[in-house]
Amino acid sequence: MVNAIITPHGHLDVLSKSEIAVLQRSSNSAYRTLFRNCALAVLSTGVNSDDGHALLAAHADFDIEVISAPRGVKLKVTNAPENAFVGGNIIAGIRNHLFAVLRDIVFLQDQVEMWEQRDESITDMVFKTLRHARALKPRKRPNLIVCWGGHSIDKLEYDYTKEVGYRLGLRELDICTGCGIGAMKGPMKGAAIAHAKQRITDPRYIGITEPGIIASEAPNAVVNELIIMPDIEKRLEAFVRLGHGIVVFPGGAGTAEEILYILGVLLHEDNRNVNLPLIFTGPAESAAYFEQLDEFIGKTIGEEAQSLYKIIIDDPIEVANSMASAMRKVYKNRRKLDDAFFYNWSLTIDEPFQQEFDPTHANMAALDLNRNQPAARLAADLRRAFSGIVAGNVKPYGIEAIQQHGPYSLNGDPSIMRALDALLDSFVQQKRMKLSGDYTPCYVLKNQVAA
Amino acid sequence: MVNAIITPHGHLDVLSKSEIAVLQRSSNSAYRTLFRNCALAVLSTGVNSDDGHALLAAHADFDIEVISAPRGVKLKVTNAPENAFVGGNIIAGIRNHLFAVLRDIVFLQDQVEMWEQRDESITDMVFKTLRHARALKPRKRPNLIVCWGGHSIDKLEYDYTKEVGYRLGLRELDICTGCGIGAMKGPMKGAAIAHAKQRITDPRYIGITEPGIIASEAPNAVVNELIIMPDIEKRLEAFVRLGHGIVVFPGGAGTAEEILYILGVLLHEDNRNVNLPLIFTGPAESAAYFEQLDEFIGKTIGEEAQSLYKIIIDDPIEVANSMASAMRKVYKNRRKLDDAFFYNWSLTIDEPFQQEFDPTHANMAALDLNRNQPAARLAADLRRAFSGIVAGNVKPYGIEAIQQHGPYSLNGDPSIMRALDALLDSFVQQKRMKLSGDYTPCYVLKNQVAA
Amino acid sequence: MVNAIITPHGHLDVLSKSEIAVLQRSSNSAYRTLFRNCALAVLSTGVNSDDGHALLAAHADFDIEVISAPRGVKLKVTNAPENAFVGGNIIAGIRNHLFAVLRDIVFLQDQVEMWEQRDESITDMVFKTLRHARALKPRKRPNLIVCWGGHSIDKLEYDYTKEVGYRLGLRELDICTGCGIGAMKGPMKGAAIAHAKQRITDPRYIGITEPGIIASEAPNAVVNELIIMPDIEKRLEAFVRLGHGIVVFPGGAGTAEEILYILGVLLHEDNRNVNLPLIFTGPAESAAYFEQLDEFIGKTIGEEAQSLYKIIIDDPIEVANSMASAMRKVYKNRRKLDDAFFYNWSLTIDEPFQQEFDPTHANMAALDLNRNQPAARLAADLRRAFSGIVAGNVKPYGIEAIQQHGPYSLNGDPSIMRALDALLDSFVQQKRMKLSGDYTPCYVLKNQVAA
Amino acid sequence: MVNAIITPHGHLDVLSKSEIAVLQRSSNSAYRTLFRNCALAVLSTGVNSDDGHALLAAHADFDIEVISAPRGVKLKVTNAPENAFVGGNIIAGIRNHLFAVLRDIVFLQDQVEMWEQRDESITDMVFKTLRHARALKPRKRPNLIVCWGGHSIDKLEYDYTKEVGYRLGLRELDICTGCGIGAMKGPMKGAAIAHAKQRITDPRYIGITEPGIIASEAPNAVVNELIIMPDIEKRLEAFVRLGHGIVVFPGGAGTAEEILYILGVLLHEDNRNVNLPLIFTGPAESAAYFEQLDEFIGKTIGEEAQSLYKIIIDDPIEVANSMASAMRKVYKNRRKLDDAFFYNWSLTIDEPFQQEFDPTHANMAALDLNRNQPAARLAADLRRAFSGIVAGNVKPYGIEAIQQHGPYSLNGDPSIMRALDALLDSFVQQKRMKLSGDYTPCYVLKNQVAA
Repeated sequence: MVNAIITPHGHLDVLSKSEIAVLQRSSNSAYRTLFRNCALAVLSTGVNSDDGHALLAAHADFDIEVISAPRGVKLKVTNAPENAFVGGNIIAGIRNHLFAVLRDIVFLQDQVEMWEQRDESITDMVFKTLRHARALKPRKRPNLIVCWGGHSIDKLEYDYTKEVGYRLGLRELDICTGCGIGAMKGPMKGAAIAHAKQRITDPRYIGITEPGIIASEAPNAVVNELIIMPDIEKRLEAFVRLGHGIVVFPGGAGTAEEILYILGVLLHEDNRNVNLPLIFTGPAESAAYFEQLDEFIGKTIGEEAQSLYKIIIDDPIEVANSMASAMRKVYKNRRKLDDAFFYNWSLTIDEPFQQEFDPTHANMAALDLNRNQPAARLAADLRRAFSGIVAGNVKPYGIEAIQQHGPYSLNGDPSIMRALDALLDSFVQQKRMKLSGDYTPCYVLKNQVAA
Repeated sequence: MVNAIITPHGHLDVLSKSEIAVLQRSSNSAYRTLFRNCALAVLSTGVNSDDGHALLAAHADFDIEVISAPRGVKLKVTNAPENAFVGGNIIAGIRNHLFAVLRDIVFLQDQVEMWEQRDESITDMVFKTLRHARALKPRKRPNLIVCWGGHSIDKLEYDYTKEVGYRLGLRELDICTGCGIGAMKGPMKGAAIAHAKQRITDPRYIGITEPGIIASEAPNAVVNELIIMPDIEKRLEAFVRLGHGIVVFPGGAGTAEEILYILGVLLHEDNRNVNLPLIFTGPAESAAYFEQLDEFIGKTIGEEAQSLYKIIIDDPIEVANSMASAMRKVYKNRRKLDDAFFYNWSLTIDEPFQQEFDPTHANMAALDLNRNQPAARLAADLRRAFSGIVAGNVKPYGIEAIQQHGPYSLNGDPSIMRALDALLDSFVQQKRMKLSGDYTPCYVLKNQVAA
Repeated sequence: MVNAIITPHGHLDVLSKSEIAVLQRSSNSAYRTLFRNCALAVLSTGVNSDDGHALLAAHADFDIEVISAPRGVKLKVTNAPENAFVGGNIIAGIRNHLFAVLRDIVFLQDQVEMWEQRDESITDMVFKTLRHARALKPRKRPNLIVCWGGHSIDKLEYDYTKEVGYRLGLRELDICTGCGIGAMKGPMKGAAIAHAKQRITDPRYIGITEPGIIASEAPNAVVNELIIMPDIEKRLEAFVRLGHGIVVFPGGAGTAEEILYILGVLLHEDNRNVNLPLIFTGPAESAAYFEQLDEFIGKTIGEEAQSLYKIIIDDPIEVANSMASAMRKVYKNRRKLDDAFFYNWSLTIDEPFQQEFDPTHANMAALDLNRNQPAARLAADLRRAFSGIVAGNVKPYGIEAIQQHGPYSLNGDPSIMRALDALLDSFVQQKRMKLSGDYTPCYVLKNQVAA
Repeated sequence: MVNAIITPHGHLDVLSKSEIAVLQRSSNSAYRTLFRNCALAVLSTGVNSDDGHALLAAHADFDIEVISAPRGVKLKVTNAPENAFVGGNIIAGIRNHLFAVLRDIVFLQDQVEMWEQRDESITDMVFKTLRHARALKPRKRPNLIVCWGGHSIDKLEYDYTKEVGYRLGLRELDICTGCGIGAMKGPMKGAAIAHAKQRITDPRYIGITEPGIIASEAPNAVVNELIIMPDIEKRLEAFVRLGHGIVVFPGGAGTAEEILYILGVLLHEDNRNVNLPLIFTGPAESAAYFEQLDEFIGKTIGEEAQSLYKIIIDDPIEVANSMASAMRKVYKNRRKLDDAFFYNWSLTIDEPFQQEFDPTHANMAALDLNRNQPAARLAADLRRAFSGIVAGNVKPYGIEAIQQHGPYSLNGDPSIMRALDALLDSFVQQKRMKLSGDYTPCYVLKNQVAA
């Protein structure tokens, strides 16, 4: 365990007296706890676990405090995980992550409440949070590829994500992921090697997370722009407004949540003119995975949704070439729509995809997984179902809820429930749910047999 | 007159859809008018007039509009003053000023109202406005010299301010002024030459203004950080919290306002430990001016106030050496108080110096210019009296008020009124009130003869 | 095959009319051939072969020409290997290597002849060649680790070199190698990942090569400073004067050459006070290799030589910690000797280590591998023996000589010949001589049986 | 007087042991004296004298020495003029000049002799000297305006040169002069203010001098690239190959030398296609000066020469607009000729303009100032005549020669001699010859009356 005083580099350290006060040891504010837990997650990079609950429990004596100093604030950490340090000094990338946490938590503290009072649109909140994190770069052409996929994938799939990242990087494309390990790390690592070969001095490896998941998905050290959105829905919106293209690798419930989110959004009729290339890809060995996923989508939200993505198996160069040429189309599309390159204002995101979903047992049970509604609506509730399962699997408060009340109960149209069962079961079989140990489902699927 | 589309450099151009909407032609918001008038002032740099009312009247057909574009916002100007352009292109420094106006007006629009609802302290508001303008530089040692003095000074005094600026610049000190001409421009120009000789690549020439005065004191083109504070009181607070030392050159009512402000603040007993060096200086020919000022201070707020400054006549090198060595003391003082180098939190500023003063005829007449109060209180109301006179002389709304209702009436203790009369009269004689034309006082001083 | 016009970035493109003329197609100069062959090698990065002769033969139709253009020179390539290009554009790192070749060949052309006329010291020539390549950085503290080792190593050893590089990089140490693959690439790749984590924006991956070897050891793409020294002896001197510490990984004849060079140099009595840390390291599986090597050194140049290095098996963190703390000693040592950080002037290098050795059959046969001489002398001739074997294995002119005249013949003291035989034989067994195919020795060792 | 150790910034401080040795106190080399004298000149910036002889005499006890240190060389100065220091520290611009002197003298020492042995062309030598000084910027469009004119001009003319510089600077043009005061400083100062307004972060104020004149024309402190060419002829060639346009202000003998040089060069028939805009300009009060000069040119080298320049009186904006539009033509011209933007290779400079002229009494008397030769030849010898007069006026060795042997004697065609007399006499009357004191001509003109 390490005790240290950490001095920031850059511009993240100008805080007012009152902003500092909220985060100090004497304070009992919720922000202080949030800050401490996110900081611990960031310092735990490289820890091979996705159990956020366990992480917090294991470091009960960890503490962090903001101290004000003549040259700006410093952070004082006590009992920090030693992996984040070399020779007593914090690794620079992790230091930057720590100060990103500070930046975003302070900003949340200062702004979100005000925004809500003023009834600002969620899209504006997402915009301002990203702007405050200096993530909106006005002068760049579209080149940011969002990569989604599981944290728990095997070596072969992981190497494939690296290779795809490498090919994207050679084409001078930047990477944005959920900032954890597995498919969130591989593409960044591959791209980093390619960017070095291309002598790109300002590559972007953007990791977007949220306070609920960060402890389970500690940001990998390649991330050079860490952003903590207030909740999972704003995190998803940040992905699709910031990114110019999306690549989906194999994954589990979290990846399914992401897929249903983007398909649900793109199904909105106002988004017909919006250009957002979407590719599902994996190594030859994962072909079955994508067949199953494609089948699930076809059986639930239907054929139109299936037309919104392209599946490319075992061909990283083809993925990279597709994305590189799609970027030129996105460029033209944005110019035609007079939309910003750095924020996809044109995308219409309906209210069910923006509202925060709290996966209580009651809310989970109340999800409407039936066919008697538009495909986008069904996608919205399926997205929530997967979101709840992620929480029950790895998020600290979800794990606690399951420990207390038993598994979530989900209910709906038998054909949907059966498709869901098949998909979830395959995730379990393929060990995509959790990193280690036998997996006990945190859900029960009702009504699989038609009446 | 020039019509042009202006593209920003740097980071000032990431605005949300709703922020843009408020500033667009279709909008009737007060912010739009504010934005237009400040923009016009900025584009009028180099115009040799201090009559803000006349400036606005002369350019009734000027217009500016924010347009959103894929790479960020642009500004579209119509009928802009041609001096701001060379070969059809806007001068880069003026372009930056325009985008600083955009930045600060948008920020004001978004924030001030919220702050007021939340009952934030004025000191926090000033801090956040400066932080948003990226004016708080955490890593720098104290080196920012605020220079105050008149816009209407003669060639000899102007050359003296340049020479002082040059000597400060050779000692690697930065300059902050009210951003207009005369004593606000000279020190920057002198410092710029010295900084070039010292090969300083990031010199700071900070101009702090406010919407009410900007039309009368168009920012000079040396200013490379333009900041528009919401009102005169916050502008004064910005000067004294941002700056590390203050040099006062000869000036008129505005300079007297500034002097009374800082002396009133420093008289507060909590500020005994605060280190804020204050030097009055001018060429040999201006010696009488400072004698008179010193006498006025002695006769009104008293001897303790006189002990707070040093008068140096005709010796730029001595001024610069004093400030350079004072900076080392400020450095130690801040470290001792654990205060930030970039913002003087330790300085206590009492409420009468922070509250906005609206110089209506009624408010001016109600000022308490009597001896039966602490010196700091008297300084506060004297400050307000001068503030009103500045408004009556050059600010658009002040000029209109005088045109409508005649001169302000001021009243108080006879000895104070006589001292005030002597000082104001000398300003008039020395042509320090207005740039051109015969000066008609915008005030009447009552009760000069003791009962 | 690709035809392309290549425009440089940076400062490498200001050539005079006469410098350009020498390199143009119409010219028959030796420099033109040299330039073409080095350029081909650079463009062949990633090709998995160490047979320089084959490479040149396979691309007989490759051509490159310097063309002068208003903004500086450009390069026109014809029938270039397509791996160096992505989407028709050359990979930026390879472009920089091409212009480094141009820079060094032009410099050689212009300078070496003059130096020889003026009888300049070889140490000065090496200095000026490195200075011209901007490789001498005056303001940096000692932190450059030279990594030596084979190009033909197995996956396990390669991963070990990466891990050592990673641990060095985390400690903010830079890497310098012979710029090929295997142990020349692994440490750079590992360090690059660590440097990214440490947010180091100007890491150095220096590759030092020479015209004779470059075709067999095409620079890997991580190299961001490529330097082509005039010959192998100046290349070796560049390593030891530029680097601040040396790590030796497993390798074959080339690595043995390097080891004998540095040991021979360090044995010079004037170098007793010079601090040049030297570590031999490899994974657990390579422990036997280093035992054998150590034994060979003991049996030939003796115990004193054995005291000059430390062997660390299977402990990358220990290697990195040793080097990091050695750097602090080097720092103090250089200050004490008043020697430059960027060039180890204090190191005495005797004439037999500086003079170019041409490995003709006659010269090889004439090597004096006997005991009746000082250890440093013996080291010098052993170094030459290995140098010749490298040439016979992979260098184009060496391969041709062996094809024409059969294997080199080496002769000396029986005990030395037997030790040599054992060592070379183990290199063959462990496939360290050549990348692929069965290895036919290019040497015959005489006199292994004592008379 | 100041003693100090001076540490360089930047890259000018990597010298080899032998390069340092030549410049050390123990050395008696001519380069050491040259270095010392140039260093003294650089440290004397701001001294208001043009008497190089007096300067050297007044600082007999000044010394400078190169010392080698771990981070690169440092300079140790003894008894240096105190104006170059503020608070004990050298002004950064002057420090850079000092290291430029070091750079160029070391380079001269190392290279010129070699070039001469190899019979390199003078044009190549000029190219390589400029390249070594990093003055050849390959990526820039043509924008460098050479400004010639006297060091001894009155306030009105000086202010005019500043205004022209200001207008050039607003149009983003860079300035190159002879680096002294008067017309060599004014344009730089004006441009510096304009560049600051245009927020240009890498403006160029190139001062080109030579060892013979530097003591009389200490580089002004605005110069941010100081280059010391080996002699006056290479200095003149550097001006015309580096610059893209030339503005001539009023001046004395030196300016006349420059005018005759460029006219003589442009008269060469191979230069018909070369685009090199040439403008003579001054305030209204200097109109007579240019009439006289124009008349002199007409009477000596003739009408064709008169067609090569444009005279613009009292109109800085017109000068700047002309140059700005000429730059676009130069751009096209260079592209058409496939010539470098950064070095005017296309310009043919004949041998009489390149060969060093040593103004001994004998050489001056032998000049051929007659009509029976081509205009360019006459221009060459007239250039030499003025060059000699400059030496006799201000250069240390010239002043000594005149003190010893009396005035130079010039002879030629009576009409030419009369024209020359009229011109020189006007220089004397207008005090353009020397800064202070009564001027005693250093020349006698023979044969003014036709036989």
